[in-house]
Amino acid sequence: MNTVTGAHLVKPLLLNCDMGESYGSWRMGLDAEVMPHIDCANIACGYHAGDPSIMRRTVALALEHNVTIGAHPAYPDLVGFGRRSMACSAEEIRDLLHYQVGALDGICKVLGGRVAYVKPHGALYNDMMADPRTLRTVLEAVAAYQSGLPLVLMATADNRAAQALGDEVGVPLWFEAFADRAYTASGHLVSRRLPGAVHHEPARVIEQALRLARGQALVADDGSALKLAASTLCVHGDNDSSVTAVRQIRQALEGLAL
Amino acid sequence: MNTVTGAHLVKPLLLNCDMGESYGSWRMGLDAEVMPHIDCANIACGYHAGDPSIMRRTVALALEHNVTIGAHPAYPDLVGFGRRSMACSAEEIRDLLHYQVGALDGICKVLGGRVAYVKPHGALYNDMMADPRTLRTVLEAVAAYQSGLPLVLMATADNRAAQALGDEVGVPLWFEAFADRAYTASGHLVSRRLPGAVHHEPARVIEQALRLARGQALVADDGSALKLAASTLCVHGDNDSSVTAVRQIRQALEGLAL
Amino acid sequence: MNTVTGAHLVKPLLLNCDMGESYGSWRMGLDAEVMPHIDCANIACGYHAGDPSIMRRTVALALEHNVTIGAHPAYPDLVGFGRRSMACSAEEIRDLLHYQVGALDGICKVLGGRVAYVKPHGALYNDMMADPRTLRTVLEAVAAYQSGLPLVLMATADNRAAQALGDEVGVPLWFEAFADRAYTASGHLVSRRLPGAVHHEPARVIEQALRLARGQALVADDGSALKLAASTLCVHGDNDSSVTAVRQIRQALEGLAL
Amino acid sequence: MNTVTGAHLVKPLLLNCDMGESYGSWRMGLDAEVMPHIDCANIACGYHAGDPSIMRRTVALALEHNVTIGAHPAYPDLVGFGRRSMACSAEEIRDLLHYQVGALDGICKVLGGRVAYVKPHGALYNDMMADPRTLRTVLEAVAAYQSGLPLVLMATADNRAAQALGDEVGVPLWFEAFADRAYTASGHLVSRRLPGAVHHEPARVIEQALRLARGQALVADDGSALKLAASTLCVHGDNDSSVTAVRQIRQALEGLAL
Repeated sequence: MNTVTGAHLVKPLLLNCDMGESYGSWRMGLDAEVMPHIDCANIACGYHAGDPSIMRRTVALALEHNVTIGAHPAYPDLVGFGRRSMACSAEEIRDLLHYQVGALDGICKVLGGRVAYVKPHGALYNDMMADPRTLRTVLEAVAAYQSGLPLVLMATADNRAAQALGDEVGVPLWFEAFADRAYTASGHLVSRRLPGAVHHEPARVIEQALRLARGQALVADDGSALKLAASTLCVHGDNDSSVTAVRQIRQALEGLAL
Repeated sequence: MNTVTGAHLVKPLLLNCDMGESYGSWRMGLDAEVMPHIDCANIACGYHAGDPSIMRRTVALALEHNVTIGAHPAYPDLVGFGRRSMACSAEEIRDLLHYQVGALDGICKVLGGRVAYVKPHGALYNDMMADPRTLRTVLEAVAAYQSGLPLVLMATADNRAAQALGDEVGVPLWFEAFADRAYTASGHLVSRRLPGAVHHEPARVIEQALRLARGQALVADDGSALKLAASTLCVHGDNDSSVTAVRQIRQALEGLAL
Repeated sequence: MNTVTGAHLVKPLLLNCDMGESYGSWRMGLDAEVMPHIDCANIACGYHAGDPSIMRRTVALALEHNVTIGAHPAYPDLVGFGRRSMACSAEEIRDLLHYQVGALDGICKVLGGRVAYVKPHGALYNDMMADPRTLRTVLEAVAAYQSGLPLVLMATADNRAAQALGDEVGVPLWFEAFADRAYTASGHLVSRRLPGAVHHEPARVIEQALRLARGQALVADDGSALKLAASTLCVHGDNDSSVTAVRQIRQALEGLAL
Repeated sequence: MNTVTGAHLVKPLLLNCDMGESYGSWRMGLDAEVMPHIDCANIACGYHAGDPSIMRRTVALALEHNVTIGAHPAYPDLVGFGRRSMACSAEEIRDLLHYQVGALDGICKVLGGRVAYVKPHGALYNDMMADPRTLRTVLEAVAAYQSGLPLVLMATADNRAAQALGDEVGVPLWFEAFADRAYTASGHLVSRRLPGAVHHEPARVIEQALRLARGQALVADDGSALKLAASTLCVHGDNDSSVTAVRQIRQALEGLAL
């Protein structure tokens, strides 16, 4: 909910989290623990994780907590968890998106929900951010699936090219940022292979979340000021400490909204 | 019993055919050749055959020919083509049905169509016919997906138990029969391992289709008269001779309808 | 090592444990913790769990601890973890065994090891114990793969039929028992759905392991005495408490051997 | 350059062909028709095609015709038929090679054969030719599997870099050429998207096969002379006309050998 707190009109910063990434007998993520604290659940659709029964349980959990459901489609690569880029054609990407979004939507429909946005997973997300042709393919697939369905993508220092493409194709864009990652001056994530890429201190993570929520600049890894226009924050439910971080971010953002 | 007392009193016997059973680089079935001659396309949903791109092409072909689209979901068994029974729980069957029907429905939606009925494939179909608990599971899954969505199942000498279950769960039933198969007295198919199980002579196939369309009894393998109440006929598009048979059946049924 | 301790010649009771059941990004089992305490590792071969890289790591770990490597092949059912019976033909079972055993053997060969026995997994194991034709299929496949390669199967009150079949086909049999499960009078496991099916008290588990090692009778669930002729004990590395149990069993058995 | 100065001085040009690329119920390739006319069968190992039962049948067919068996491993991508590059790590490539070669070797062993060489399939083959690091990964994996096991790769105008790498790692290299494809001056295949990429006239195919067998230069697409040092020719068994071409090539090469 938007609230005027003085100098700033604070836009709410929605928390989105990858969910439903178990598969068969294998468990991943503390979905039940983190679901009460997030706004948007990116639910795996069976291609990198998430079998039909896991998907149903995750959708039910999201509905129980009034969490908005997003499809989290991926390249068909269970063993690689959708993290390996695959040389798919535009047609293949379009069709695998429709298949996965439709499958999740079918399960949602049965439980009284619906897919409210799309966020590609892993290598497909990275490829979409790296290659405008892939971004166009994804946008056109999302638009073809349902008019007005938003796409989640990464906020960078300059969202204009992506925004222009989204406007052209007619897809609302939700730009996301990260509270626990260091950024380059261009607004890209510092590679995990470099030191300082991930913020581990809770205070720093919360500070970054608050700056993003307030529309304040971050400090990039070269010391420059970085403004990221983001409407959602990507959080993680992998383990106890990440769930704790989500709770703390949520609390801090609620303090802001008062 | 249907009786011809004038024009158009014969109930139409819809032709349904398994379609979209190619996968990746592998081709199966003469979909383009048989589509113009059928009423209902049972389209594979990715678990026994049919990848997203094959599904899209098959849906487009069906829409082009005004053919009603049905979901043809299966056990998850590509290598076994869904023909091997798997000891799935009721929950697993429900969820894999929703996943597959939803996936096909998503692709239909993009192309301006929709899933208009469900016909389980292979071993799942057989298990549903053999075990009333599995039939109930399937019926409840179909009803949960969409109110009024019909299920295709096999007509036997006595459809009453199935009909009672369909009525209880609230699912319209489309009973199907076969023009090219011999039947036992109870209205089950003679096993393919036995001689005479499959009719190969076109005249005999057409004769059986016409008897079914007119509501006349067939002759079972023990010589007894067998009445099958069927509203649809399962035909095949595997090869040239089966496509020819479909064309001949279609022609014969149209003659009947005049 | 065999040791005469008086009245009984105590045969060593080898500890076997399912291993390598992670898959891609999903982790299962405390392989590194339990490996030092077992004799035989049943390594998943990719059909229910275990991708090539997991297999390699598991084989390397086994070799490091001088643990004998067994193939743990399954029905092709990742999402069901090989726990759902599938109606495979004898030829299909034979061929999927050779494929999986060969794949593991290839990885062993690279690391200087070899597959030294076969223990089917999950539903395939259960089907083999329930149906003598499936047992024969498995035995013949094991014999065809390599002369003298042993098969692990379940000890029951009467191993004679299985032993006769093993002798006929020429496959050495390793009968296994469980220290943490209650038995029926016929030497089958009490269903997990019934109370008392699993022993949770460490003392009772160790007591049962020791009785099996000494060749003493157990008490079946109807109170009758049950003699099981077993040369190996199936233990578990799922979690901390099961690893602790394995260590305690190992210690108890070593005390026996002195 | 080979010169015929007497009988039998022409080095034989072995014919290799991709085989066993059916999967489950899907058929691909005329394996039975082409097997009698080839020297080396590149047999799919289950990752892009070829289930265990197809593999067994193909191995049996090869043994029956005294055809040398090669493993034809691929990226794990059934729906893409192994034709889409995947960003696998060196470790993943090494392990998936060992898994697939081992699986085929296991099936060979049962039937009295063995894997005698390795030829990567599709995108893995292309990636290996395009990236020396991938070639090194493949070479090291082949060497680790079995000392002296050869690798099939593509002959180009200059095989020296590949040969140096093969010598360093200790893997014999079999360079292959194509009789039905146009070449660039550097000895790479003209893209199938360009006109004239594929030779369709039998006479031209046979002429190119003979030139390759005699060690004579081809004419590249820019008119320059292209010498390819190849010990094997890749032929195809996809359809009747390709099988006819194989028979004609075989006949022509046998005439040469007299």
